[in-house]
Amino acid sequence: MLFSRIAIFSPGLLGGSLVRAIHRQSAGSVEVRVWGRREEPLQCLRDEGAATFASTNAAEVADGADLIVLAMTIGAMRATLEPVLAAGALAPGAIVTDVGSVKGSVVAALEAPVTAAGGYFVGSHPMAGSEQKGLDHATADLFTDAACLITPTTTSDPGAVDRVEDFWRWLGCRTARMSPERHDETVSRISHLPHVVASLVVEAALRESPDAAIYAGGGFRDTTRVASGPPEMWTEILLENRDAVLARLEQFHALTGEMLAFLRDRREEDLHRFLSGAKERRDHIYGRR
Amino acid sequence: MLFSRIAIFSPGLLGGSLVRAIHRQSAGSVEVRVWGRREEPLQCLRDEGAATFASTNAAEVADGADLIVLAMTIGAMRATLEPVLAAGALAPGAIVTDVGSVKGSVVAALEAPVTAAGGYFVGSHPMAGSEQKGLDHATADLFTDAACLITPTTTSDPGAVDRVEDFWRWLGCRTARMSPERHDETVSRISHLPHVVASLVVEAALRESPDAAIYAGGGFRDTTRVASGPPEMWTEILLENRDAVLARLEQFHALTGEMLAFLRDRREEDLHRFLSGAKERRDHIYGRR
Repeated sequence: MLFSRIAIFSPGLLGGSLVRAIHRQSAGSVEVRVWGRREEPLQCLRDEGAATFASTNAAEVADGADLIVLAMTIGAMRATLEPVLAAGALAPGAIVTDVGSVKGSVVAALEAPVTAAGGYFVGSHPMAGSEQKGLDHATADLFTDAACLITPTTTSDPGAVDRVEDFWRWLGCRTARMSPERHDETVSRISHLPHVVASLVVEAALRESPDAAIYAGGGFRDTTRVASGPPEMWTEILLENRDAVLARLEQFHALTGEMLAFLRDRREEDLHRFLSGAKERRDHIYGRR
Repeated sequence: MLFSRIAIFSPGLLGGSLVRAIHRQSAGSVEVRVWGRREEPLQCLRDEGAATFASTNAAEVADGADLIVLAMTIGAMRATLEPVLAAGALAPGAIVTDVGSVKGSVVAALEAPVTAAGGYFVGSHPMAGSEQKGLDHATADLFTDAACLITPTTTSDPGAVDRVEDFWRWLGCRTARMSPERHDETVSRISHLPHVVASLVVEAALRESPDAAIYAGGGFRDTTRVASGPPEMWTEILLENRDAVLARLEQFHALTGEMLAFLRDRREEDLHRFLSGAKERRDHIYGRR
């Protein structure tokens, strides 16, 4: 393994899964250190043997780590890393990465202070969340076959970028590199827009008729699944990636207007062409049925 | 079993699943007759022993059946049943039902002619489809635990309605009764709106960027799954249930406009309230995470 002492900050769904995945994948040979605000999940990871060291003191957890992964909500990352940098606890040449769903603002906030402290910051985004949250749902398998987007900047250290990419590959991810800006545009399409729309479908379908969905088949369940995700986290994500999400949602709103016209005027051919186009584009990704 | 000779018209995903489910559930004691336009799927069902008799001649297939299930596209139902009625091949007191996704227009088209021919028509809608189609995907398990909506009218024969409901329960469905109008309003919420929206998400996300979704996680895949369904079938469904779908999509369009304002004006509290409301309403149906 490329790293011998890895610090995971915050054992939620993603962080807890990382702790378990690293422990399993390295057969215990990598030292896994965990920081969390609450003692209970830390004790749980100590008890199961996945965490070598776990503490609510960030500087202690970071001590001697050659990789630190920030796995809390985006807005809390800078404040969580602050005491580590202030205490001079970042090891020389240590790499810091994160798992945040937005990269432009995260990279802008963390690259400079980590570099100034003698480390390297490289943003990552494993596309491995779900509508669930917390250590209870964390699993060593979470990253297997998931896509992980690595977001170097023009000033990133090439060696550090390689090592971060190798780390995610070692955990089973399919990786790709792109700029933070391109990342944010891409996830606005494939993650943030679908999330907003899932919530809109629930509201349009059930606000006036809360029990209608007890008759629903798998279509409604799947189409709306992500709407059960944590509202605090998603409010933050949508506002952090506001410009790209707005652009997507404006386009979506315009397309919805087109669809309304197809239905109002019974434009069967246009409706059919629209549905066929969507099927083709989706099947291009997931295979024809 | 309540019926001893059941005729299934058209062995697609739903019809083929019915043939296999009835054969399995009755351990071969119910005679299953199958009508189809093409010989190949009929031969397949004969070969596997699930169909007792299979033919491209509708009147022959209907002969002596005490239950006929119409499982083709909505617009083809009347034309398919016509030669049966014209030939006087409907057994006295036979029950005819269907599996169509829209009930107002179907019931209006079929109730009178079936009644005039000495039978009973009762509409059904098992919520058991998927984005797949055809006999290749048909399975005896399709109806297990699926909801099935039965849509009697004020003139329906109570005994026939009971027997149709018992039939779906015997196949493992959870049944509920409602008028054709209430059915069409309900499915516009939980099936037709989600379908349209899934296609809109695909187009808004991928039209300009067809490969963006190769990085997607499970959220995009699930949110858009139904958009891979057959466009011909869905064009017909949406136009047959046009008024209800229009009402839902107009409401959805207005809510999307609200969401756009939340994002444009960075109305964090309103955004959070909206996402929380959607999560609550969905968790009310599928359980809290």
